[in-house]
Amino acid sequence: MYQNLPKKVTLIEVGPRDGFQFETKIVPTDLKVEIICGLMEAGVKHIQAVSFVHPKIVPQMADAEEVMRRIPKREDVVLSALVLNAKGLERARAAGLTHVEISVSASDTHSRKNTGMSLSRAIEQGQEMIRLAKTYGMQVRAGIQCAFGCVYEGQISDERILNMAEIFMKPGIDALCLADTTGMANPLSVKGLLKSLTEQLSILNSQFSIPVVLHLHDTRGLGLANAAAALECGVSHFDTALGGMGGCPFVVGAAGNIATEDTAYLMKSMNIEIGIDISKVSACSRRLEAFFAKMLPGKMFRLILKELEDYL
Amino acid sequence: MYQNLPKKVTLIEVGPRDGFQFETKIVPTDLKVEIICGLMEAGVKHIQAVSFVHPKIVPQMADAEEVMRRIPKREDVVLSALVLNAKGLERARAAGLTHVEISVSASDTHSRKNTGMSLSRAIEQGQEMIRLAKTYGMQVRAGIQCAFGCVYEGQISDERILNMAEIFMKPGIDALCLADTTGMANPLSVKGLLKSLTEQLSILNSQFSIPVVLHLHDTRGLGLANAAAALECGVSHFDTALGGMGGCPFVVGAAGNIATEDTAYLMKSMNIEIGIDISKVSACSRRLEAFFAKMLPGKMFRLILKELEDYL
Repeated sequence: MYQNLPKKVTLIEVGPRDGFQFETKIVPTDLKVEIICGLMEAGVKHIQAVSFVHPKIVPQMADAEEVMRRIPKREDVVLSALVLNAKGLERARAAGLTHVEISVSASDTHSRKNTGMSLSRAIEQGQEMIRLAKTYGMQVRAGIQCAFGCVYEGQISDERILNMAEIFMKPGIDALCLADTTGMANPLSVKGLLKSLTEQLSILNSQFSIPVVLHLHDTRGLGLANAAAALECGVSHFDTALGGMGGCPFVVGAAGNIATEDTAYLMKSMNIEIGIDISKVSACSRRLEAFFAKMLPGKMFRLILKELEDYL
Repeated sequence: MYQNLPKKVTLIEVGPRDGFQFETKIVPTDLKVEIICGLMEAGVKHIQAVSFVHPKIVPQMADAEEVMRRIPKREDVVLSALVLNAKGLERARAAGLTHVEISVSASDTHSRKNTGMSLSRAIEQGQEMIRLAKTYGMQVRAGIQCAFGCVYEGQISDERILNMAEIFMKPGIDALCLADTTGMANPLSVKGLLKSLTEQLSILNSQFSIPVVLHLHDTRGLGLANAAAALECGVSHFDTALGGMGGCPFVVGAAGNIATEDTAYLMKSMNIEIGIDISKVSACSRRLEAFFAKMLPGKMFRLILKELEDYL
């Protein structure tokens, strides 16, 4: 039936970063810290807590240093940050971060529109940042945006992704993240790209040399179908956001990251160890839904009836 | 990668029945007819248009005869109705229906609460109705509710489902529908039950003797992951509702049937022929979202930007 399923899956919570940054209503620092603490309490072991980006471009992240200062540090929880340039990396270092993600779009058009850099220049800068972060002794994750397609360029070839992965692996990254930024992946393309990576780069095998993380968006509703497909390829690390927060500037309405609660439920239903208390994450999502005064797209966090909770 | 995928999938539209019946705001007959015509125009070839149930229990379906009278009949489109007792079957016959679904819950508790009948009595009545409908020359689909679990009884054994399927097949049904009424299926249980059916009843094979239809709800977010799992077992018939309409009385918030547009997109992305114009179905969903003045849970119908439509 299902071959090759991992016994255990790690969910990397990106709601406080990828979820919040999409919202125009500024989340008070207090609430950010409360949510992050709630997630740790729920058993989440890796949280991408902030991004260090220009406060004029992403006002939601203006308090990144303050958030990091106020989160009680726990030895069993990794806190990471997204950085997009050298300035951000320096800020992350100064804030005491030990884990950072650098992220480059696989689409030349998307890269130029978002960062003003061509694809080749962005890759070069990414590689420089990885080197620098490694000299700082940081754990570095390299993210490839639009790995499964781009609204401007359509499908991105597997060759380009493999090529970027190879370039980023040279300075020694600690994880590779494939991001389906606009929700264009499907079960076939997920399996296809992961197969190429496994066969041609030998970074995927029964014992991954480095973890491959899938960052999936549910823009077209295929998020968890894609996650299930990735499981069959042995992927055991997924980015998720509580309540399914996050979004896509091209889509009117709710369609964010795959929801932490729903993904955790999928894993549990397939007898995969996940170590997360879905009810506790749900409480955080309900808190945020009340704060933003709008419906979040996740499903599981709505199942609040006692009789249903028995099946979590 | 994916073995055994069907080349072509048929979506059976249940929005006008399973979607509308959940809504308290009565949809005017005009709008029902408009939506059903819009679906036919979009290429949908099978529509469960109404149910013949007591108007005091389901006021939304009080105009079932009128709806059926006013839909322009097309030779290439099957219109079916759900019937739950002999009275409903007679009404369907009088209204000229050639296709009906009878439906029985696999959960004794659920059956007693919903219909006042024990499981064994409900099965017996179902069998009688199948026989009667066959004597009327109708095509009959037998639906098994809660086939993947029940909020009262938890998991339902595959043996019970197989047993019910066997009983319903005796009088000669034309299709078997497995309904995940409260969204408790997961990719493992879907594959497990379908494997049992294939091996033990020989109704599933490369050329199904009768179609097995999956009726999936997205209550816990696993709807399309379950559909993808079913595809791998060779299932080629799915119930869907435009915009992801429909619901579950146990869940606060949106979580209906798998959305027609999203399911069609999943199929297309996997190179499976579907014959449905997603944009045209989406127009119907947007019309209903405006009418109900609330967000429907589907994703694809929101993608209305020109640049994104290029990828449909």
